[in-house]
Amino acid sequence: MAFQYIRITKPAEFVAHVELNRSDKLNAFIPQLWVELGQAFTQLSTDSDVRAIVLSGAGERAFTAGLDVVSAGEWMGEMANLADTARRTTYMRRHILGMQASLTAIEQCEKPVICVMHGVSLGMAVDIACCTDVRICSSDTRFAVKEVDIGLAADLGSLARLPKLVASQSWVHEVALTARDFNAAEAQAVGFVSRVLPNKAAALAYGLDMAATIAQKSPVAVHGTKELLYHGRNHTIAETLKYTAVWNASAIQCDDVQAALMSGMNKTKPRFAKL
Amino acid sequence: MAFQYIRITKPAEFVAHVELNRSDKLNAFIPQLWVELGQAFTQLSTDSDVRAIVLSGAGERAFTAGLDVVSAGEWMGEMANLADTARRTTYMRRHILGMQASLTAIEQCEKPVICVMHGVSLGMAVDIACCTDVRICSSDTRFAVKEVDIGLAADLGSLARLPKLVASQSWVHEVALTARDFNAAEAQAVGFVSRVLPNKAAALAYGLDMAATIAQKSPVAVHGTKELLYHGRNHTIAETLKYTAVWNASAIQCDDVQAALMSGMNKTKPRFAKL
Amino acid sequence: MAFQYIRITKPAEFVAHVELNRSDKLNAFIPQLWVELGQAFTQLSTDSDVRAIVLSGAGERAFTAGLDVVSAGEWMGEMANLADTARRTTYMRRHILGMQASLTAIEQCEKPVICVMHGVSLGMAVDIACCTDVRICSSDTRFAVKEVDIGLAADLGSLARLPKLVASQSWVHEVALTARDFNAAEAQAVGFVSRVLPNKAAALAYGLDMAATIAQKSPVAVHGTKELLYHGRNHTIAETLKYTAVWNASAIQCDDVQAALMSGMNKTKPRFAKL
Amino acid sequence: MAFQYIRITKPAEFVAHVELNRSDKLNAFIPQLWVELGQAFTQLSTDSDVRAIVLSGAGERAFTAGLDVVSAGEWMGEMANLADTARRTTYMRRHILGMQASLTAIEQCEKPVICVMHGVSLGMAVDIACCTDVRICSSDTRFAVKEVDIGLAADLGSLARLPKLVASQSWVHEVALTARDFNAAEAQAVGFVSRVLPNKAAALAYGLDMAATIAQKSPVAVHGTKELLYHGRNHTIAETLKYTAVWNASAIQCDDVQAALMSGMNKTKPRFAKL
Amino acid sequence: MAFQYIRITKPAEFVAHVELNRSDKLNAFIPQLWVELGQAFTQLSTDSDVRAIVLSGAGERAFTAGLDVVSAGEWMGEMANLADTARRTTYMRRHILGMQASLTAIEQCEKPVICVMHGVSLGMAVDIACCTDVRICSSDTRFAVKEVDIGLAADLGSLARLPKLVASQSWVHEVALTARDFNAAEAQAVGFVSRVLPNKAAALAYGLDMAATIAQKSPVAVHGTKELLYHGRNHTIAETLKYTAVWNASAIQCDDVQAALMSGMNKTKPRFAKL
Amino acid sequence: MAFQYIRITKPAEFVAHVELNRSDKLNAFIPQLWVELGQAFTQLSTDSDVRAIVLSGAGERAFTAGLDVVSAGEWMGEMANLADTARRTTYMRRHILGMQASLTAIEQCEKPVICVMHGVSLGMAVDIACCTDVRICSSDTRFAVKEVDIGLAADLGSLARLPKLVASQSWVHEVALTARDFNAAEAQAVGFVSRVLPNKAAALAYGLDMAATIAQKSPVAVHGTKELLYHGRNHTIAETLKYTAVWNASAIQCDDVQAALMSGMNKTKPRFAKL
Repeated sequence: MAFQYIRITKPAEFVAHVELNRSDKLNAFIPQLWVELGQAFTQLSTDSDVRAIVLSGAGERAFTAGLDVVSAGEWMGEMANLADTARRTTYMRRHILGMQASLTAIEQCEKPVICVMHGVSLGMAVDIACCTDVRICSSDTRFAVKEVDIGLAADLGSLARLPKLVASQSWVHEVALTARDFNAAEAQAVGFVSRVLPNKAAALAYGLDMAATIAQKSPVAVHGTKELLYHGRNHTIAETLKYTAVWNASAIQCDDVQAALMSGMNKTKPRFAKL
Repeated sequence: MAFQYIRITKPAEFVAHVELNRSDKLNAFIPQLWVELGQAFTQLSTDSDVRAIVLSGAGERAFTAGLDVVSAGEWMGEMANLADTARRTTYMRRHILGMQASLTAIEQCEKPVICVMHGVSLGMAVDIACCTDVRICSSDTRFAVKEVDIGLAADLGSLARLPKLVASQSWVHEVALTARDFNAAEAQAVGFVSRVLPNKAAALAYGLDMAATIAQKSPVAVHGTKELLYHGRNHTIAETLKYTAVWNASAIQCDDVQAALMSGMNKTKPRFAKL
Repeated sequence: MAFQYIRITKPAEFVAHVELNRSDKLNAFIPQLWVELGQAFTQLSTDSDVRAIVLSGAGERAFTAGLDVVSAGEWMGEMANLADTARRTTYMRRHILGMQASLTAIEQCEKPVICVMHGVSLGMAVDIACCTDVRICSSDTRFAVKEVDIGLAADLGSLARLPKLVASQSWVHEVALTARDFNAAEAQAVGFVSRVLPNKAAALAYGLDMAATIAQKSPVAVHGTKELLYHGRNHTIAETLKYTAVWNASAIQCDDVQAALMSGMNKTKPRFAKL
Repeated sequence: MAFQYIRITKPAEFVAHVELNRSDKLNAFIPQLWVELGQAFTQLSTDSDVRAIVLSGAGERAFTAGLDVVSAGEWMGEMANLADTARRTTYMRRHILGMQASLTAIEQCEKPVICVMHGVSLGMAVDIACCTDVRICSSDTRFAVKEVDIGLAADLGSLARLPKLVASQSWVHEVALTARDFNAAEAQAVGFVSRVLPNKAAALAYGLDMAATIAQKSPVAVHGTKELLYHGRNHTIAETLKYTAVWNASAIQCDDVQAALMSGMNKTKPRFAKL
Repeated sequence: MAFQYIRITKPAEFVAHVELNRSDKLNAFIPQLWVELGQAFTQLSTDSDVRAIVLSGAGERAFTAGLDVVSAGEWMGEMANLADTARRTTYMRRHILGMQASLTAIEQCEKPVICVMHGVSLGMAVDIACCTDVRICSSDTRFAVKEVDIGLAADLGSLARLPKLVASQSWVHEVALTARDFNAAEAQAVGFVSRVLPNKAAALAYGLDMAATIAQKSPVAVHGTKELLYHGRNHTIAETLKYTAVWNASAIQCDDVQAALMSGMNKTKPRFAKL
Repeated sequence: MAFQYIRITKPAEFVAHVELNRSDKLNAFIPQLWVELGQAFTQLSTDSDVRAIVLSGAGERAFTAGLDVVSAGEWMGEMANLADTARRTTYMRRHILGMQASLTAIEQCEKPVICVMHGVSLGMAVDIACCTDVRICSSDTRFAVKEVDIGLAADLGSLARLPKLVASQSWVHEVALTARDFNAAEAQAVGFVSRVLPNKAAALAYGLDMAATIAQKSPVAVHGTKELLYHGRNHTIAETLKYTAVWNASAIQCDDVQAALMSGMNKTKPRFAKL
């Protein structure tokens, strides 16, 4: 699949690098961008040549500035022309569900995703980062759950996911209700990002290095780990334990366990079959 | 509605200040106080002149010392006179459910609530604070989940809510099982409060300022944000995403979005219709 | 019940100390060890002479090194001999469910459990610690969610429980996907442990002291507190509130409330009947 | 409390009879009627002189014809005057939640409710009947989930509750999507009502007789049975079993068990203390 | 979109008729058939010219005979060639999830679906019928949950959905565990189908007539009714009530309510705008 | 394991017959009986020589008369001697949880259980029958949810499970609240039993025949079917679909599929490896 606003490269074996690629507009989101983003992760999910993914924004100034307001004005206008409230509501509900589905494709991607943020990271930046496994950023990153400032509750996932990702609900409610900026240090203090690097280059290097580490592990083990972590986020402990037993009872019957144990003893690097 | 133990003032446009007002008894809770507390927040919930609320305790010494033991002795005595265990249990279950409902009214209030604590903040203090959106305190605040020390498991919400609000379950279990005090610094470290100010006056000023900030946003956006954050606390991510789409598909059809965007461009302060 | 690999002592009134007791093998887990561990906590759960429990590992070098690989090789071999994939899967599912049940017995034990870790604390060490109420460790503790390195997703509870215990999901995903070590300071920063002591002896003394404190409280209050905290972990707030009302409506009818209040007034140490 | 559109009588010891009492308008619902209905059941819930309740409609022609369209036009008009869609939606959401709460009060009433229907039983008739424990009707009853015919999805509970009460989801979807009438025989065949009597008088007599039977049982046992049946409707089996154990562990300590066993042996009628 | 094995016609205004169209093979399922089936319903879901759908099988002999075993042998063979159990499991899990998604598209279609069955209706026939709103059949229909007879548990939804659709779990377990046939009369007795007609032509006519009835109602009301019925199937009553209030608060602001009321008074047929 | 009050026989290949064997006391339940019952099903669950189980009551007069009141008086007395309400409640809660666990062992048994009832089938009879897969009875069976008549809410599962097994909640509430008897015909009409036979011998023969039929199917397919049906009872459809995909992706890799297909083609009886 060829993308216009998404760039996918392979900087190391089994590692994919996905970039939001509309840097002249601070990677602001138009419909084609989020559709391509969803397609990219759906495709990578079962790409047996990929075992870990880094997601970042092209250009020096922004991970993303969020929704492109010019574009948003267009489909808001389309909605306004409809017959009555119920029909406008139906239009918008389908629209929001479609946008959510594009972002959820990142979370549902079978491969772990490391999000590397820098510069302007507003609105959809937080929605997207919440769909990834590990979040790191450069020290210049400026975050905000910005939606309240444009008269909206955030509807692409920040309100659903952010509270489950960090330490302090008092902090979450404060930044969501005031729409105020927060910086890299504050993001790390509450656990939103788990590492801050001096600049974008260093953050990207760190993220790619982590991806390379993960890509050298058994893909069966890595996929199972991601799957079970997400299962746990949405289920009781008892349910996840049972699901885990069913999952692993089969997954354990792979050649990777033997290969990993052998490599451990022989101090060699194991090779795993494609998944 | 006229209250005896609750004082409501309007320190700024669209901001209400609710005070526990039984300071000669360290704002200790008698039945009338919690009934009035619930009524106050139920009433403010749909008061279109209010868009953000600060909750604090009157007097210099305490946010609240918790349950008034003299008063508690009275209704415990009433229970003891009943015919048998099942009847005493029915009496107590209705009693506890009633107290819980009064506190839950704070959580269900459509407007965000900022809790400003100081001094003695024991037992019910924590139950109540857990029902608010943002928690801040003065540096002299002394907290405890005190119930174990009077032979009880906390039953007004601390055990249900506190674990979902902070970082470390190891810490939660420790303070709940030992009933030991913890101070403002420790409360901030685990994310229970998101800001510590030098004294009560400074904390109150900070809280009122945050309330004023929120009160200037679109009331549609603020209410939706609170609603969706609480939905997320009790549902899976997938369920909250769907609920969000249904909620926002309608909420987005308000004049506030236009007003907010215009003000953003014109650097003016937007005015929003009442909700 | 007499155990071979578990040692139970009573260092103080109403306090039990449970030790993993296979220190010549770094307390690595063979089937008999986890079966005995589960039996020990099931038995202590209703032992009216015990009101708080400390769990630690014997020897100076390790809390536990995790699964014993020699032993694991044996039952993996047994599985490999079965007729087909479905039968091997059934064998493994029953095996994993059995191991999980042994660990869950710690969580379901009616008495609070304080886990004191030191030295090597890998793989099952984290699974086990996640089943306890309070976690503390010595400064030399070396942790890892190690399973990915042997070609597996962790299946004894770390992936189900760890995310619900700590602050930062970004951190959880990172340590689970990379299998990297983390030390005591990092464990404390994310809230996995709530206290770090200089060495094993100090950690153990601290843990036993906390257990003694809890053991002097009303056993009805302590048990209720543990029960309701775990209920809250797996239910919505509304459900836990209701369950709490039903639980406490009966629990409050105990002599402990009176005894605790009297002792509070008289500055004496209350005595509570056995539970 | 004095009601205008609800009549409450006490036809037998411990039995209350609640009637919708606006028969000149086929008991069609205006706001005051549903508010009074909710208040009546809230009050009866803890009335220790009542142990079972019959709910029916006054007059010969209708249990209820549903919403009063004249009255509905009024508050629909009030809504239409509001500033924008979001404000109209807020008005309507509060309105619907209020109506739902009035009906849910029937379900939450601690005493069992037997619904006796006859004649016209459309729209809200089904919503209300779904909130009761036992449903019976006269052979002339004409039912419909009528809302689709006025351009609406039913929002007072029929769509939430009816599918959980009867046998065939194919039938439920058919009657809800087509809004067609169904008669008493069809209602019994699918299990919506459990008994059909020849006429209103016979149905009422049958319902009052059943209420009298229930009212002679232990009120502790009857309340527990209703509580646990409703818990089961909204929870997994494992959760209801646990809740049941906590509930009954206390309820069993009542004098009623002894009294019931004695009466059973002595062939006498037991007397139970008030609850 | 052009389909090879699915035929879509428009027998009446706003009514679509979808046929499984591989009658020379008893409409047995090959991958292309289920992919097209899912695509057809996804497309119809937002087709504003369609308001109700009938689903049936082409030809006189079968609704569908279920999975095409020749085709199944092919992808089972592909799986068998993979490296190890974990990789074969991954292949199959993705395959089953894909098939499930195609069928779930029927359930998620915004328009009501009436399933008209006849003749051979085995295995996937039941899976598919369980995804529709209303089920009717001809008297010659022969049903079976056939999977156990080919060494499998049914994995396309019968075990997940059938128990929630009918009266007797004893019956469900019996037919699922024995794989025995059941006929139209038995299907009606347990509520699986809500109507039996003498032959395929009569059943189809009846289904199309019901579809035409539904298609004349307000599309806003019909869609809301379907949405809320499915919400209720997977949520507690309290959750569905709240979701309903949010949904309807917006939906009620449509011109359809006015149009429906007017038509009711004027005895005319209302016309509704497209949705 | 040798049992005193449970008799286990093997009337056909892979079929076990479990009998309540205290017929001189109408199979009334004393603690040893329910403990043995739980142990029997736990043991049979992984007995590879058993693939289907029939459960019935010895003697001509009763499946079971329920709890043995003499025995119940003893442990009620033991409870009464405890120090206070909280301690009595703890005793009873553990007691009830233990009894529930014995019955739940039937539900959790990996093999399908067919319950054959006759004669007196009161109280625990219904609790037990609700834990089985298929229920049949002789025409003389007399059922009742009897607990209300002894001052209790049923606490061994009838209130949790019965509403999920049958058609009409109106009927369930009626029989649970009135404690009235119901006969075989009524039990069949509401779907509680799926077959009524003329007498005990005929019912037993029918049940054993059904068990023999199931025992000849693939044990992998049969176990998966039971597992997924029970998963569905306690989860949403989406969750059960996902669990099903994970389960079957592995289960499908068994030799049974091939064997079943071959036998189907060759008209021979397949043989399946032990599970």
